[in-house]
Amino acid sequence: MAHMQDFPLLLSTLYDHAVWIHPDQEIVSVESDRSLTRTTYAETDARVRKLASAFDALGIEPGGAVGTFAWNNIRHHELYWATANTGRICHTINIRLFADQIVYVANHARDQAMFVDPDLVPLMAPLASQMETVKHWVIMGPEASDELPGSIAYDDLIADQPEHGHWPLLDERSPMMLCYSSGTTGHPKGVAYTQRSTYLHTVTNLANFPIEPTDNVLPVVPMFHAAAWGYPYMSVTRGAKLTYPGPDLSPQGLVNLFANEEVTFSAGVPTVWLGVKQYLEANPDASLSTIRAFLCGGSAVPRAMIEWFWKTQGIRVVQGWGMTETNPVASVAILKPHMEDWPLEEQLDRLETAGIPVPGLQVKIVDEVGEELPHDGEAFGELLIRGPWIAGEYYKDDRTPQSFVDGWLRTGDVCKITPEGYIRITDRAKDVIKSGGEWISSLDLENELMAHPAVAEATVVGLKHPKWQERPVAFVVKSGEVTQEELIAHLEKRVASWWLPDKVVFVDAIPKTGTGKFDKKVVRDQYSDLLMG
Amino acid sequence: MAHMQDFPLLLSTLYDHAVWIHPDQEIVSVESDRSLTRTTYAETDARVRKLASAFDALGIEPGGAVGTFAWNNIRHHELYWATANTGRICHTINIRLFADQIVYVANHARDQAMFVDPDLVPLMAPLASQMETVKHWVIMGPEASDELPGSIAYDDLIADQPEHGHWPLLDERSPMMLCYSSGTTGHPKGVAYTQRSTYLHTVTNLANFPIEPTDNVLPVVPMFHAAAWGYPYMSVTRGAKLTYPGPDLSPQGLVNLFANEEVTFSAGVPTVWLGVKQYLEANPDASLSTIRAFLCGGSAVPRAMIEWFWKTQGIRVVQGWGMTETNPVASVAILKPHMEDWPLEEQLDRLETAGIPVPGLQVKIVDEVGEELPHDGEAFGELLIRGPWIAGEYYKDDRTPQSFVDGWLRTGDVCKITPEGYIRITDRAKDVIKSGGEWISSLDLENELMAHPAVAEATVVGLKHPKWQERPVAFVVKSGEVTQEELIAHLEKRVASWWLPDKVVFVDAIPKTGTGKFDKKVVRDQYSDLLMG
Repeated sequence: MAHMQDFPLLLSTLYDHAVWIHPDQEIVSVESDRSLTRTTYAETDARVRKLASAFDALGIEPGGAVGTFAWNNIRHHELYWATANTGRICHTINIRLFADQIVYVANHARDQAMFVDPDLVPLMAPLASQMETVKHWVIMGPEASDELPGSIAYDDLIADQPEHGHWPLLDERSPMMLCYSSGTTGHPKGVAYTQRSTYLHTVTNLANFPIEPTDNVLPVVPMFHAAAWGYPYMSVTRGAKLTYPGPDLSPQGLVNLFANEEVTFSAGVPTVWLGVKQYLEANPDASLSTIRAFLCGGSAVPRAMIEWFWKTQGIRVVQGWGMTETNPVASVAILKPHMEDWPLEEQLDRLETAGIPVPGLQVKIVDEVGEELPHDGEAFGELLIRGPWIAGEYYKDDRTPQSFVDGWLRTGDVCKITPEGYIRITDRAKDVIKSGGEWISSLDLENELMAHPAVAEATVVGLKHPKWQERPVAFVVKSGEVTQEELIAHLEKRVASWWLPDKVVFVDAIPKTGTGKFDKKVVRDQYSDLLMG
Repeated sequence: MAHMQDFPLLLSTLYDHAVWIHPDQEIVSVESDRSLTRTTYAETDARVRKLASAFDALGIEPGGAVGTFAWNNIRHHELYWATANTGRICHTINIRLFADQIVYVANHARDQAMFVDPDLVPLMAPLASQMETVKHWVIMGPEASDELPGSIAYDDLIADQPEHGHWPLLDERSPMMLCYSSGTTGHPKGVAYTQRSTYLHTVTNLANFPIEPTDNVLPVVPMFHAAAWGYPYMSVTRGAKLTYPGPDLSPQGLVNLFANEEVTFSAGVPTVWLGVKQYLEANPDASLSTIRAFLCGGSAVPRAMIEWFWKTQGIRVVQGWGMTETNPVASVAILKPHMEDWPLEEQLDRLETAGIPVPGLQVKIVDEVGEELPHDGEAFGELLIRGPWIAGEYYKDDRTPQSFVDGWLRTGDVCKITPEGYIRITDRAKDVIKSGGEWISSLDLENELMAHPAVAEATVVGLKHPKWQERPVAFVVKSGEVTQEELIAHLEKRVASWWLPDKVVFVDAIPKTGTGKFDKKVVRDQYSDLLMG
């Protein structure tokens, strides 16, 4: 027998505690029709328990997957908890996937029921006939939809169900959520979060970067994207108010909701906060007086934006870093106590990084042959990470060996780690330029180029080179008059000489991905033989 | 393969993170000779790694136990971490045990080495010859002791050792600490905390009742008592300053140390804070301006004391409850956000309880036949608890079945649980009076009696009764003129009529235990036949 009880790490224990201790805490939700639902932990619990019984009635067995296709709202919240508490899997489908990807993930996860927000039915309905395992279609609102024949309304589904009693004592390694990450090539790859991994992500992140019971948390990051970075679990565990924004993610909609509900903390990608910044600049009467911090992640956070929110709004923009494969928050750019009195510029040097690993996780950077590199802020290599809430494999996917090695996750990010412990992302592993056995950071070169006043946009890629394997070439959109020689001279003062691009190509536009990032793959393909003479 | 990495919950991962991120954070320690040692996480880490190598050199195998007999100081801190990080067991011996108990626990734990503070050698030396498994005696200071022949000095032991490298990847269910609880009868019973249980205790308590990296934590509660309630682990994990008070636990010594080191948070039993209160009352120039909160537990916390510290010092005295068997913090009397604005009296109604269970733990109260009772604040029964950091058994002890039932720990405390979630301890299970199948709280009766102006002390015990199994009898030390009839009349207005004591016995003094509590067992034995007529 174990010395201590072998009691499992189950989300239901955190949930039951929260409902018991904070029954009157509010949850506010913007619905698909823009109406506002105002409810409490206790009222929501009654619906969660009815939904759990409905899963039984629908014949969804333990371990079975339930698909969701929905915004951040109260019914999605209920689905999160009713699946986790009963040992089912919540498969949150990214509504921005391509149609064939949506079909792929629903079939791959073997979703037995599909829960769809009313205003997303037009996206889902054309795909319904291709879903091989979905037996039940549920519209997340008071009414079924003619567009999805045979669908039932969520509110009808749970109306007459009994409230589920004690939650089962599950194995803590049971999967409770499936998140698919949309790579640029091939099918999306699934990660199966477990009770244990999400539980540890929840309590450890709360210990590291606290949410308080007095907070009102508004996750802008979608619940279909890596569990909304865990905020539904963290907020409930801590007894905080939750405000779900539904489909209106416009700057105006968010600023109004922040103000009306007195939101104190929110989380989202940089473009969200850039939009909010522009809105506030254009509307000087608006302000965000109740917000204390934004967590910001998903892509690099502009230093100027962090500075602007601090100086004009008193809001700390805190960068978080993670991936679908890290459940997802793996590092947070918090200042250490002795840095709180530092000049802003020195603080920004830390705040603009990907942050300090969350306690309990281990990180290392390695070179091309897997040798560990020092944490000296100079050496850069691929970031590897391991810990209790890091993926160990892709879900039923033979691509697992590409990303996991000796118990570590290969993140695909090339990073420096400073002696102080801050991770600074230098490049994506696939974009880093391999020149004569050394690595050149395409991101560093881009940032230096874009600092030039006559450069509107710049991307740097490694192109095949007969002698050096790859050499950097810059692609630049001008916003003023500038020559190749002037840009090279600009870079010479800022980077090592062997980093200087072999060519600068002036273009009218740089190809972009669906999410607005430079599409370096297209650039590389288009100019592949430029240096091969 | 698991979906997520099967990475173990190891204290070494929290430790390494802290040393890396907070190398310059201070640890201050009062030594046995009252001198002050001032060091840092990084400097301490070098010594922890040398000590780990010394364990190897001494031949202490993984899983082996190392005894400590020491105050709260830096070397004790180093022993905590060097054992945990290498998979050894730190057996912290309570210096206040009787001599034969000390011998018993050292032999039962099979301690291979014994680390003794210099000023505690006189207590330990006479017992050395009876310790069957101790092969090495180490004096925790710069010099060996003639009183313990063959002993070596701690500082010499580690001086020439290499710094231990990577910590081993242990099974998370490995034991890392042995704590013996000193019951009133029989040998002490051991609880073996595991890596997993202490890790979860650490991060979940930090999430529930936060320590900040800006805090300076001074554990008054001994490191030989239930891991100083976990504060060495919590403080390091969070990167907080630690101040260890060594042997001087006098009110004056503590108040000076609080002031000199700018301590923000401390933890100890009520008598410690009562002493501090008296000292502050007698020394109006002294104040505790840097302290934000005291955690207080181990026995019931007087309401008046909580009130006094809040009103006069602005210090929140927060009651915690737990046992050696609960690793040990299981509940904390925190106010919910909506209570922060309440009148003080209503806050005190919550602050004086044993608190709200820590998330992740489950509690219930049961009657004599194990039936669960409602959490209505009225029903009272024995408190049962389970969760990931609750003991599952006593260490190599056949008394386990007495305290564990169906996966739950029987706490031996009789409690009410309010609908708000606060646990109110009503009595000890062995002291509650079983009268005709119903339970009467001896504590409630005592409190009502002691509220009478003519009562100095009162204890109430259940004595054998021919008809009712047991009936309450009160033993009262008078501080003024009062009769049995007057005291019964006083109680009639306050308790149910069937709770009224059958007799009030006036005595000169009530027998007390070594720790100053009423010794009800002696009273029951002495008067066992009083009601048997």
